[in-house]
Amino acid sequence: MMRATVLYGPKDVRLEQVPDPKILEPTDAIIRVLVACICGSDLWPYRGYDPVPEEGRPMGHEAVGVVEAVGKEVRTVKPGDVVLMPFAISDGSCEFCHEGLTTACVHVGFFGYSPGVGGAQAEAVRIPLADGTLYRVPVSEDDRELLPHLLTLTDVMGTGHHAAVTARVGPGKIAAVIGDGAVGLCGVLAARRLGAERIILLGHHPDRLELGRAFGATDVVTERGEAAVERVLELTGGFGAHSVLECVGTEEAVETAVQIARPGGAIGRVGVPHHEGIPAGVTFFKNVIVAGGPAPTRAYMPELVPDVLEGRIEPGRVFDLTLPLDRVAEGYRAMDERRAIKVMLEP
Amino acid sequence: MMRATVLYGPKDVRLEQVPDPKILEPTDAIIRVLVACICGSDLWPYRGYDPVPEEGRPMGHEAVGVVEAVGKEVRTVKPGDVVLMPFAISDGSCEFCHEGLTTACVHVGFFGYSPGVGGAQAEAVRIPLADGTLYRVPVSEDDRELLPHLLTLTDVMGTGHHAAVTARVGPGKIAAVIGDGAVGLCGVLAARRLGAERIILLGHHPDRLELGRAFGATDVVTERGEAAVERVLELTGGFGAHSVLECVGTEEAVETAVQIARPGGAIGRVGVPHHEGIPAGVTFFKNVIVAGGPAPTRAYMPELVPDVLEGRIEPGRVFDLTLPLDRVAEGYRAMDERRAIKVMLEP
Repeated sequence: MMRATVLYGPKDVRLEQVPDPKILEPTDAIIRVLVACICGSDLWPYRGYDPVPEEGRPMGHEAVGVVEAVGKEVRTVKPGDVVLMPFAISDGSCEFCHEGLTTACVHVGFFGYSPGVGGAQAEAVRIPLADGTLYRVPVSEDDRELLPHLLTLTDVMGTGHHAAVTARVGPGKIAAVIGDGAVGLCGVLAARRLGAERIILLGHHPDRLELGRAFGATDVVTERGEAAVERVLELTGGFGAHSVLECVGTEEAVETAVQIARPGGAIGRVGVPHHEGIPAGVTFFKNVIVAGGPAPTRAYMPELVPDVLEGRIEPGRVFDLTLPLDRVAEGYRAMDERRAIKVMLEP
Repeated sequence: MMRATVLYGPKDVRLEQVPDPKILEPTDAIIRVLVACICGSDLWPYRGYDPVPEEGRPMGHEAVGVVEAVGKEVRTVKPGDVVLMPFAISDGSCEFCHEGLTTACVHVGFFGYSPGVGGAQAEAVRIPLADGTLYRVPVSEDDRELLPHLLTLTDVMGTGHHAAVTARVGPGKIAAVIGDGAVGLCGVLAARRLGAERIILLGHHPDRLELGRAFGATDVVTERGEAAVERVLELTGGFGAHSVLECVGTEEAVETAVQIARPGGAIGRVGVPHHEGIPAGVTFFKNVIVAGGPAPTRAYMPELVPDVLEGRIEPGRVFDLTLPLDRVAEGYRAMDERRAIKVMLEP
């Protein structure tokens, strides 16, 4: 038996004893979790916005782990390897994986979500399609100081990077980042990494905005709604930002994004949409590109891991609270009440 | 005095005597119209969907003409030059013009729409910002057989090209074109020109679909709604098209576009949106790019004119009815009743 986190309903998250995961398919691996974390998207079901099955939902979709066992067809990882577990399962061999869109893999699955697939807020996880899904990193489990940074590549930093890529950030561009959560902050870091000349961060939490500045934000905008739009236009000579990273997913955030995008600019959406439609007229008349979606974080690892290993980026700074797995419920409360940006868990 | 077309209300279009246009600004030119035409978008106000001012609205925004007079600051065109008049006025010098997005020019205006700017379904037109707006072509007014093809570059062919570019058509790609109007047909031609491997045209009019096949469509889909979506998925191995050219602008067309776009694919919208929103969820979860808008047809002329002059494309085949300007009202009726794809007018 092992300990794993299960959500039963609004605010009812429990650490429970569950059976140890086992190799079920020859393409499976089992990893022992070194570090895991709580995602902003875990708060949707925690707050009751997304339904939870009666038997509970296993939680967690981000982990750095050590391979414990592999099925007989697994070729790219072996017991003892330290690996990154991205939030999506992918086979690594279909045409979408070859195109780098692992989240559209023909065999895609999601940890804590797909039938029979557990969560990462646990001592161990079964990894389907281990060759495609896991990414081996050349570190040992004793490299504790690297683990938080590597952990972000399984979701938030890869997602911030996806926002920046799909919003077409590049040298000389003005980027605007909507949202000062962990993804938005990683979006700032990604935009700086891709050469943005100016990075405007829109948010409301002084501590987060401070980290945003440390990550490269050149301007912060704390206004809301129409006032925020006016402020961004003021900062950009009236035209708006070339690249807008939409890291929230609400109707208000998307409305702001389309208003502050410059004609011919691009919006990279990575906030899971909790709204119906993207305004059709304003995006059309400005020739604004609307892109983004679930980030293929697995595909971005070869590009981002070296930057972490060589210390060029420190995305793990978004973890401002670390708790033992036993105190996972406290971690959910801290994020729900916005006392923590992002919580890391150590089993 | 000269003859010009004025719309007074639903189905009430008249050829009237109006004052000759005059140079008002030193950057103006006056062109005598050689050929003009009626646009699918002219049917929105003709059918009463867009409001018309009480004093009437001058009609027409596409013309090939001969320069008659220029203001004293005009440098790039001179009397006697044959020129293309794109539907949008642009200064040719602002940062958006330099980026090739002439329809977002800081001085943008629209023929037949902006205050004090007449329409092209007339004997002559005043062209504001002539240096930026007009494009000289090395033909004489006697090259009658070239004029229809060149005329399409002022709107429909440039717009079809914009749909293809923003939908990221390229070699090896599967393109789907929604709409068999003149723009959709030009979209087919543009997709072929950009190297699409397969071009699926969705429409309902046998004569137009036949021209679509001549322009390069490899498949035609005549079903509607869900059945059309299923047919396209069937034709594309279940995944959908890499590039979707949305050339209609209705809610149904956009819904079809998002359904038939392949994960990671792109939609190029050029149908003026007569609907509220683009579905946020399905585009997000498929990482579909939604792009497009008013086509910068002026910016595309240097690329497309040589193809017309050297006979590589014959977009003027969309004109299946040519009328003298005196019979303009008959032309509107023919397009409204779908008896003509597109009507060319000769003053």
